[in-house]
Amino acid sequence: LDSASRHWLVEYHGCDPAILNDRDRVRLLLREAAEAAGATVVAEVFHPYAPHGVTGVIVIEESHLSVHTWPEYGYAASDFFTCGDCRPELAHQVLSQGFAARRVERMVVGRGLRGAGASLSVQEHVREPSAD
Amino acid sequence: LDSASRHWLVEYHGCDPAILNDRDRVRLLLREAAEAAGATVVAEVFHPYAPHGVTGVIVIEESHLSVHTWPEYGYAASDFFTCGDCRPELAHQVLSQGFAARRVERMVVGRGLRGAGASLSVQEHVREPSAD
Repeated sequence: LDSASRHWLVEYHGCDPAILNDRDRVRLLLREAAEAAGATVVAEVFHPYAPHGVTGVIVIEESHLSVHTWPEYGYAASDFFTCGDCRPELAHQVLSQGFAARRVERMVVGRGLRGAGASLSVQEHVREPSAD
Repeated sequence: LDSASRHWLVEYHGCDPAILNDRDRVRLLLREAAEAAGATVVAEVFHPYAPHGVTGVIVIEESHLSVHTWPEYGYAASDFFTCGDCRPELAHQVLSQGFAARRVERMVVGRGLRGAGASLSVQEHVREPSAD
């Protein structure tokens, strides 16, 4: 297992509430995201919140993917924690389109053994579309 | 479910490799961490890596806790993604002591609906002990 990992923290805003509240739909999307990223799925947990929302985690050989949804706000938060050859940007693409997100904010954080001071470094922080 | 969440990203260095490679031990520690934080456990997945290491995720009503361990480097990476009254600092204390970590680096990131520009904000970034 590669000890230099990338961690994408992504906030999806202006999403379709019906999609965010549909556990099966969210599960299919997160699975599709894992596949797009080239991750090897090990296990998954999906849980409905009361009264709204879904939590889903897919454990992959390369770490994990997670999503928490707040349909009442059209908002979802995801994490793609991956090492090796995974492509989190493709997982992100699947969720962004799948949730019909109108705005996205994402941060990429380097983790793991990268030499002194290089861990927990913010490598990218992007809002799309950017503010006027 | 509270839509303003806190996300702790924590790197544990100089840990006891035998502990990091013991799935049952890691599971007990993460459960204990969840309990210390005051989280309500919903489900869990623990998975051994080949040839070394453990991945564990505990889904909680308040989001999730995760850990990935690299015993060969004495290193583990954790995430405490919580909302509401959870106390991630207590979960962190349990793991730091449980892994016998000699150095810790942690970042606290605000997530969720906190008003414009306040999401994905780094609220704290600490190395302990700090560099000489």
